Amino acid sequence: MFVQQPIAILDSGVGGLTVAREVMRQLPREKIVYFGDTARAPYGPRDPKVVTRFTREIVDYLIQYRPKMIVIACNTATAFALEEIRAIVDIPVVGVIKPGARAALGRTITGCIGVIGTEGTINSGAYEHALLEISPNVHVISEACPLFVPLVEKGNFRSLQTYETIRSSIGHLRKFPMDSLILGCTHYPFLADVIQEVVGPDINLISSADETAREVSNILQDQGMLARGEVIPVHQFFCSGEPQMFKSIAQQWLGEQIELTPVVWQVPQIG
Amino acid sequence: MFVQQPIAILDSGVGGLTVAREVMRQLPREKIVYFGDTARAPYGPRDPKVVTRFTREIVDYLIQYRPKMIVIACNTATAFALEEIRAIVDIPVVGVIKPGARAALGRTITGCIGVIGTEGTINSGAYEHALLEISPNVHVISEACPLFVPLVEKGNFRSLQTYETIRSSIGHLRKFPMDSLILGCTHYPFLADVIQEVVGPDINLISSADETAREVSNILQDQGMLARGEVIPVHQFFCSGEPQMFKSIAQQWLGEQIELTPVVWQVPQIG
Repeated sequence: MFVQQPIAILDSGVGGLTVAREVMRQLPREKIVYFGDTARAPYGPRDPKVVTRFTREIVDYLIQYRPKMIVIACNTATAFALEEIRAIVDIPVVGVIKPGARAALGRTITGCIGVIGTEGTINSGAYEHALLEISPNVHVISEACPLFVPLVEKGNFRSLQTYETIRSSIGHLRKFPMDSLILGCTHYPFLADVIQEVVGPDINLISSADETAREVSNILQDQGMLARGEVIPVHQFFCSGEPQMFKSIAQQWLGEQIELTPVVWQVPQIG
Repeated sequence: MFVQQPIAILDSGVGGLTVAREVMRQLPREKIVYFGDTARAPYGPRDPKVVTRFTREIVDYLIQYRPKMIVIACNTATAFALEEIRAIVDIPVVGVIKPGARAALGRTITGCIGVIGTEGTINSGAYEHALLEISPNVHVISEACPLFVPLVEKGNFRSLQTYETIRSSIGHLRKFPMDSLILGCTHYPFLADVIQEVVGPDINLISSADETAREVSNILQDQGMLARGEVIPVHQFFCSGEPQMFKSIAQQWLGEQIELTPVVWQVPQIG
């Protein structure tokens, strides 16, 4: 393992950019190779087996760049495919669910924690399991929000439609005594301002992006795998769908120009 | 390894209680065995070899309780003895310095980070090293505060003397553009209110206690070592010095009665 090898980050689309941005900020020496599977987003409504197959295909693609670590920066893929990917590669594989759960347990005072995510993530019960495994007394309120990812993939972060969609999806969560809300989908930090407005200013929004970047930092530092030297890394981005929208969202979110390579899947993508 | 075995937490005195409290809060199923070496506190001004010997002696003592993990909840001991302890036991050993450093990198916006700690910790350069290893562009301002630990060990958290000591020790840090200040000694969270008042409300105080508890949670969950079941654990506390002061501070800080066993060191303690 060569410490200058990149970190591979993958997602169904642009959501994993929230993790990539935090990795860039917290670990400025690390080079990133990023894959957004925009042609097949959203993953949330798909069958777990299909999500696992898609995740394997992306890992197969990124592995040619010889990453030292893989970050599954998609909650749905983490819920369904993390263990399988861990079993087939011999480098550390980090998901986004347990870091987010632990962060929420570190922040909550009332012990009442909300979780919003895709249907796949919420139905998997992965957050509830991760939370209750650690702390038997927390109360978890989960809500699937299938309409949020499409808003983000279209770059529609702050419109009236966005506000109305979010209000009608999670406005009722205000009636619970929760003090922390896990953004259990890496797309949701794009919508954080509106989500905060809808749930009220006193709720801690827990972004798995921040926490996952911290986890990446933990592993690299503890295992002596941090990149060294003064070279500024040049990141590489890949997306399977229409490149212009991806590039526009990525550059806006990351605040810099990116080098983007479109990828066309060679196999039928039904599922 | 049996998951119901306790977590051993050790410190030169009452400082590690800040870590213990967070472990109790974040991991309510876990049983703790805690050792405060109050007879020999503070460790800060001591020779590194003496600190390492003391740390080994405490580990030798706690190991009879068959812990599944050891937390060196003392920055000075982490700086000098962490690697040696890791080499002699076959269970995970967690220190407090790298978690604190990573938390600061996750919070800073300006990239200017302050660190306060004992002479031993500050002179070791351990925080500077941990920060710069990850992020070459941060600017680190360090200040040794030898007078703080004795204030805490005497239970003197908020007096005028405390305020004056803190103001004259770190008041000048306000002139730097730092936005985050690492409390690089587990005793300092006892003084957090006064420290915040002295450095101003806009500075993020980074407590290694919170972050270390999160790291403990990471390791236990990722390695399948979390305690299970519904039994409420009964923690055990040991201290080498005068038990009454330790008990009073511990019960006040933890908000519950504790079971305390005084320990008398059998060997000469010069050093």
